[in-house]
Amino acid sequence: MPPEEGFVVTPYEVKGRIDYARLREQFGTEELGSDLVKRLARLARGPVHPLIGRGVYYSHRDLATVLDGFERGQPFFVYSGRGPSGPLHTAHLMQFELCRWFQERFGCEMYIQITDDEKAWARGIPSAETARWGRENLLDILALGFDRERTHVFFDTRSIRALYPLAVEVARRINFSTVKAVFGFRPSTNIGLIFYTALQTVPCFYPSWATGRTVPCLIPCGIDQDPHFRVTRDIAEGLGFPKPAILHSQMSIGLKGTQSISTTGPVEENAIFLNDRPEAVGRKIANAFTGGRATVEEQRRLGATPEVCSVWSMWRTKFAKDDREFDEITRDCRSGALLCGDCKARLTPRVQSFLTAHSERRERVRPWAESLIIESPPPGAAPPGGPNR
Amino acid sequence: MPPEEGFVVTPYEVKGRIDYARLREQFGTEELGSDLVKRLARLARGPVHPLIGRGVYYSHRDLATVLDGFERGQPFFVYSGRGPSGPLHTAHLMQFELCRWFQERFGCEMYIQITDDEKAWARGIPSAETARWGRENLLDILALGFDRERTHVFFDTRSIRALYPLAVEVARRINFSTVKAVFGFRPSTNIGLIFYTALQTVPCFYPSWATGRTVPCLIPCGIDQDPHFRVTRDIAEGLGFPKPAILHSQMSIGLKGTQSISTTGPVEENAIFLNDRPEAVGRKIANAFTGGRATVEEQRRLGATPEVCSVWSMWRTKFAKDDREFDEITRDCRSGALLCGDCKARLTPRVQSFLTAHSERRERVRPWAESLIIESPPPGAAPPGGPNR
Repeated sequence: MPPEEGFVVTPYEVKGRIDYARLREQFGTEELGSDLVKRLARLARGPVHPLIGRGVYYSHRDLATVLDGFERGQPFFVYSGRGPSGPLHTAHLMQFELCRWFQERFGCEMYIQITDDEKAWARGIPSAETARWGRENLLDILALGFDRERTHVFFDTRSIRALYPLAVEVARRINFSTVKAVFGFRPSTNIGLIFYTALQTVPCFYPSWATGRTVPCLIPCGIDQDPHFRVTRDIAEGLGFPKPAILHSQMSIGLKGTQSISTTGPVEENAIFLNDRPEAVGRKIANAFTGGRATVEEQRRLGATPEVCSVWSMWRTKFAKDDREFDEITRDCRSGALLCGDCKARLTPRVQSFLTAHSERRERVRPWAESLIIESPPPGAAPPGGPNR
Repeated sequence: MPPEEGFVVTPYEVKGRIDYARLREQFGTEELGSDLVKRLARLARGPVHPLIGRGVYYSHRDLATVLDGFERGQPFFVYSGRGPSGPLHTAHLMQFELCRWFQERFGCEMYIQITDDEKAWARGIPSAETARWGRENLLDILALGFDRERTHVFFDTRSIRALYPLAVEVARRINFSTVKAVFGFRPSTNIGLIFYTALQTVPCFYPSWATGRTVPCLIPCGIDQDPHFRVTRDIAEGLGFPKPAILHSQMSIGLKGTQSISTTGPVEENAIFLNDRPEAVGRKIANAFTGGRATVEEQRRLGATPEVCSVWSMWRTKFAKDDREFDEITRDCRSGALLCGDCKARLTPRVQSFLTAHSERRERVRPWAESLIIESPPPGAAPPGGPNR
């Protein structure tokens, strides 16, 4: 459909040019307004994470409730995951960077779920291959600097014994018509994928189950993933657990100019992958779609449009070293002072250095990464989903 | 529908009076004919099990293939399971008794699956309750006298770590339309039950996966359960495993005269449960539906009809001490020499003694029963479902 006329956003499809304000209204989520951002800054005793400050995270469900509890002394935890079917790209890191900020500023426990089973089901890839990517991706995530003592990993095929008792009770409460409506499943969908949402739900409830206390959950994710957790929210209270709160981000613009990186065709040239060689980084950025004008003269005169630009999206979501640099780039882009070629030339070494430093940090977490994987259910936890639940 | 006109047999429903020969034709299974029975006896170096000799097991898929392999020196294993939602009744023991005979006569390894997760999904019972029944039922099964060294238990919620790697690969190959057609799932079916057939399939392949060699599987079960394993058979070779062979039994007639004990309404008075008190046994048998006539005089003159009689079904499937006694009862029933009251009076103490002896044997297996539960995947097994599978 033409961008003017509409758009579609689901966990498996993004079409048209997204109007994020309208999307939030369609989904029925709340705006992450300035009052709430200020409150976050106050509780964090410092500035909010740039992804919040720059409006990349722009929508939420029940964040205020989680913060109310936090002010009363009730800790919350953060949960994010990865479906491993290949290398991570830089935009995959957004949700984990936000989790890390919450861990650092709010003392949160962090739960990471590596869904190797789901990807085998969703992509038709052998599970040995998704498990291999899962181990690789986990290193990349942990390399962001999570606190080892407060970070826990569910690696589905290895953690299934821990996940399964709750998954059985969750699955008992979700019927086919619900997942069909939410995920658009078809007769040809395999039975693993149909079951999967039960496993994705478990980490939301796990700390409450394990401790026997209410531990609220906060999930940073792309807004396209919201439907997954609506199912979770609908059954939470019936199981005696709080509904997970959600922080929704806008999607990163693909280097080819797509509204989202992953849900439209081949992604290889649409993103910078963490295992890209420096030459590949240079080539991809050089070829990247921008918000520039047809000619230099026109751009000098009229300025460019950062909001549609994949290069600006990278500055905004990760590579500007601070708000000052980000504001300067945005202003100069809009005014025509900064040309796309120069902007790209500035971004390229920044990305290359990040990848080099990242791969070193990645090696440093390797010795202990898999020790964070939870393999057994919590000792002494009561059976979940008893007669009154 | 009237018995004359037709019948329906599915894993979840039995309607009408079953014509077992026609049912076999509908399902497309092979007859367990006298040649194959003789071959079984020859390989067993002794008489076949009475359940085979008396025609209770009457149909099969690929039994000859399994025996061909056995003659060439290839061992096969037997697999049977139990969905624990309450106590076992005597007819539940049939399939396990046949497994035990194969273990004794053919040296088979035995795999028992206790499907506590499935029953939570199928019956809407909390999984803590199905797990509790699972532990009870396992004692009853093992009390039949399995060889500890060659008997292995999958207790789903406790064995999930071992089952899951294969289950992921199985689930990847089964789509919703298949299970919908086979099991009659509806929009209101929960996503656990939809997934479940993947887990029920795993034991069929597990020994081959664990050893890296082809180990054929033989499953004794009621013919109503055949559809479950048709799905398994369809995907077996794609995963590099042999199709499981199946031995099908007729169903036990319920004490109320129903064609099957479990699939029609409340079962409490329809069967003798292993935890029934002696008085309950007496009452249930006294009230049992028989193939007798309206009056003693008429029965003396015309004889009774054993084939529709729930009491005769108990003699046939378990309680006749040998074929001689069974043939005598059958003959005298048919001739009118044996009246129903006398037949019941003879059966009652036989059942009561069995239950007493059984509960003693049950206590003897209790100390080690749970040590047979497989909790970890086989060390060193290759990841299942590789690229060429």
